Amino acid sequence: MNENEFGRLYKLLAKNLLKELKDELSDMAYPDIAEFIMDLDDDKISVKIFRILPKDISADVFSYLDTEKQSVIVQSITDSEIGRLMDDLYVDDAVDFLEEVPANIVRRVLANTDRETREIINRFLTYPDNCAGSVMTIEMVELHDRLTVAEAIKSIRRTGVDKETIYTCYVIDDKRHLVGTIPLRRLLLNDEDTPLTEIMSDDEQLIYVTTMDDQEYVAAIAKKYDLLSVPVVDKENRLVGIITIDDIIDIIDEEATEDFEKMALLTPSEDEYIKTGVISLAKNRIPWLIVLMLASTLTGQIIEGFESKLSVVAGLTACIPMLMGTGGNSGNQASTLVIRGLALGEIKIKDYFTILWKEIRVSLMVGLVLALANYGRMLLLRLTGSDVTDSVILVVSAAVMAVVVVSKTIGCSLPIVAKLLKLDPALMAGPLITTLVDTISLVIYFALANAIIF
Amino acid sequence: MNENEFGRLYKLLAKNLLKELKDELSDMAYPDIAEFIMDLDDDKISVKIFRILPKDISADVFSYLDTEKQSVIVQSITDSEIGRLMDDLYVDDAVDFLEEVPANIVRRVLANTDRETREIINRFLTYPDNCAGSVMTIEMVELHDRLTVAEAIKSIRRTGVDKETIYTCYVIDDKRHLVGTIPLRRLLLNDEDTPLTEIMSDDEQLIYVTTMDDQEYVAAIAKKYDLLSVPVVDKENRLVGIITIDDIIDIIDEEATEDFEKMALLTPSEDEYIKTGVISLAKNRIPWLIVLMLASTLTGQIIEGFESKLSVVAGLTACIPMLMGTGGNSGNQASTLVIRGLALGEIKIKDYFTILWKEIRVSLMVGLVLALANYGRMLLLRLTGSDVTDSVILVVSAAVMAVVVVSKTIGCSLPIVAKLLKLDPALMAGPLITTLVDTISLVIYFALANAIIF
Repeated sequence: MNENEFGRLYKLLAKNLLKELKDELSDMAYPDIAEFIMDLDDDKISVKIFRILPKDISADVFSYLDTEKQSVIVQSITDSEIGRLMDDLYVDDAVDFLEEVPANIVRRVLANTDRETREIINRFLTYPDNCAGSVMTIEMVELHDRLTVAEAIKSIRRTGVDKETIYTCYVIDDKRHLVGTIPLRRLLLNDEDTPLTEIMSDDEQLIYVTTMDDQEYVAAIAKKYDLLSVPVVDKENRLVGIITIDDIIDIIDEEATEDFEKMALLTPSEDEYIKTGVISLAKNRIPWLIVLMLASTLTGQIIEGFESKLSVVAGLTACIPMLMGTGGNSGNQASTLVIRGLALGEIKIKDYFTILWKEIRVSLMVGLVLALANYGRMLLLRLTGSDVTDSVILVVSAAVMAVVVVSKTIGCSLPIVAKLLKLDPALMAGPLITTLVDTISLVIYFALANAIIF
Repeated sequence: MNENEFGRLYKLLAKNLLKELKDELSDMAYPDIAEFIMDLDDDKISVKIFRILPKDISADVFSYLDTEKQSVIVQSITDSEIGRLMDDLYVDDAVDFLEEVPANIVRRVLANTDRETREIINRFLTYPDNCAGSVMTIEMVELHDRLTVAEAIKSIRRTGVDKETIYTCYVIDDKRHLVGTIPLRRLLLNDEDTPLTEIMSDDEQLIYVTTMDDQEYVAAIAKKYDLLSVPVVDKENRLVGIITIDDIIDIIDEEATEDFEKMALLTPSEDEYIKTGVISLAKNRIPWLIVLMLASTLTGQIIEGFESKLSVVAGLTACIPMLMGTGGNSGNQASTLVIRGLALGEIKIKDYFTILWKEIRVSLMVGLVLALANYGRMLLLRLTGSDVTDSVILVVSAAVMAVVVVSKTIGCSLPIVAKLLKLDPALMAGPLITTLVDTISLVIYFALANAIIF
């Protein structure tokens, strides 16, 4: 929505033309209405606007609001309004909301919900975070396996309004076992008296997940098979819910964000940055910083052991940061590619030796180019007054080459080792590798210095 | 697909039971068939298997193969087979394939395509990479704005088989202008004689993009409005294509990968890691490594200028890597959160001062904790034999605190500055910030040392 449209709404609001505002809002898309309500700083006005929305769209708009505004609204509306809202929300949106708000709001909401919905919500709240059960919804189209196409379409016309999607229908038997799926498209393009069992996907083509499957797996399945919704079954293979493509996209974004955070040494958090408090932000950042700071005691010790020698040869100390930086950056490049490849399923553990062999060749090339560049750089420095000797230039250039090769080898290996140990490869990213590579770089550097200079 | 199923297929292949293999494959989902064909190392066998596939599914399977196998197959089949294949492929899949293969294959393929398809493909190939025009498809359901619901459903039944999706229909006027959209769901749930114009989304709710819009924008629109397909119009507002949700998901993955790569100082590449040659990998890595290596000349100069003083006070040199590491890691944490927030649209430029104020408070807390931890660490080192003085411990701890605050401030600011300058915020990540922070850390460190020790 652009500034102009916002401006028009604000103008109506300022003039208190609520009738006109309501008409204007009713014509807008739900996410835009939600955007306008979230843009209002004054919570009282947010609530006022929410209340003038036509009853049949308020739940839809509610599901697009952030948790903050949702809480504000729920705390300001009447018990019967809450009851109606919870009735109109899809179960997955209701659960998403209840998972984020304080216990007292949850209690009040549940107290105003009818028994059946309450039981469903309570069951959903017990699923562990990030499993299929916790993100699914129950509003799917179920068709009995005795129906024909015409009967199925009639059934969808009758019940479809309340379903989150009607584009993939799920065929169940008498015991609610999932026995097939059928895209609405196939229903429409087939003869009216065809039995569903004849045109549904079954057996080998039947794709589903179970309630306890990880959401990352659900997203991978949806991507691989281009599904608009993924059916979820319980342990007895009974259909209990579906996960729709809009939630799949949220999962994909969430998983990528988690990897970004882990790679930057942050304890992953599901909250938006802008809404996270200062203390939680600090808490998410301190642990790894301390671990790595303590780990760097090791590089300190190595330098201390070499300090007397460093101080007699000009230029040796000055190159330490460059070497460490180059090592860290090189390792980082290799590990990022491998981590992302693993996350997208483009790389498998069995590819390790292919990758290693590739990285060794790449690093020899990269190392050689960098070593030559460094050679040139240091010659130039000497021309402009630095008093480094030939042997120092040689040592540093050789160290650059060695450091690139070693750090790329480590960088491509650690994520795969992590995967083998069932750890998250994203943890093996930049900073962790940097610290390891820093230590090894120093050892190589000083060993070369010892061999060539001293 | 699990190992068992693969095993069964390989067994049939080994016994040369092609008829049974064909039956087995016909029952499988297209991505699984493609997976099997890609798993076959021998290209001749891949082609053989592709050729025994039933004609009505071979194009679908082809679209799930990787470019390598696609090229192999196209080079081994006859001209008339190519013609048929290109006819059966959706235009976006055909274009995806042609964009990746060598010119001689493109020429042979186009020579065997009918004129109309060839013209369409040629038009698609001229769109710049990563714009809406280059990822759209033309197989959409267009409904005339004079139709009723019943007529619309009849039209879909007649033409729907060849459309990539029928779940969102696009309403056009006599001049092919996009005048509304209508979900299939709404068609089915309305009375048969309702005119489309009465139930379609128009005006304010009409969401579309233009051919030259960036694919990242397309993905953002699809996510915001939960669309299953996004209509694409040309400059005259005529409907020219749609982008379907499966391609939107590919875009989301691609954009995240690009950010990961930029943050790790890699020149972004659209190829899968495992399929990229050693030389291109090396080329993607060398430029930034050299730039940063040259930039670190600066830190080297700073250290050199201070070398005489460093050599007389024990422990000062040894702490340099720790300080730089801590600075880099702290800056990285802040920049990653801001970069990801910008990418997901959770952070806007106007939030800068909120973010800055937040980061300052966070960094004071984090800095204090780390400074105390460092104080303890160095006291412990002294107990175990290191001869650092009280004033060195004080200087290093104070430097830790200052470095954390400065690097977090820089880390949260640079991505936003990049966004302001219309550069990609992801470029302002880890390594670039690290190099800047390294320099500043050293200056702070030596200034503190000068003030307290010398």
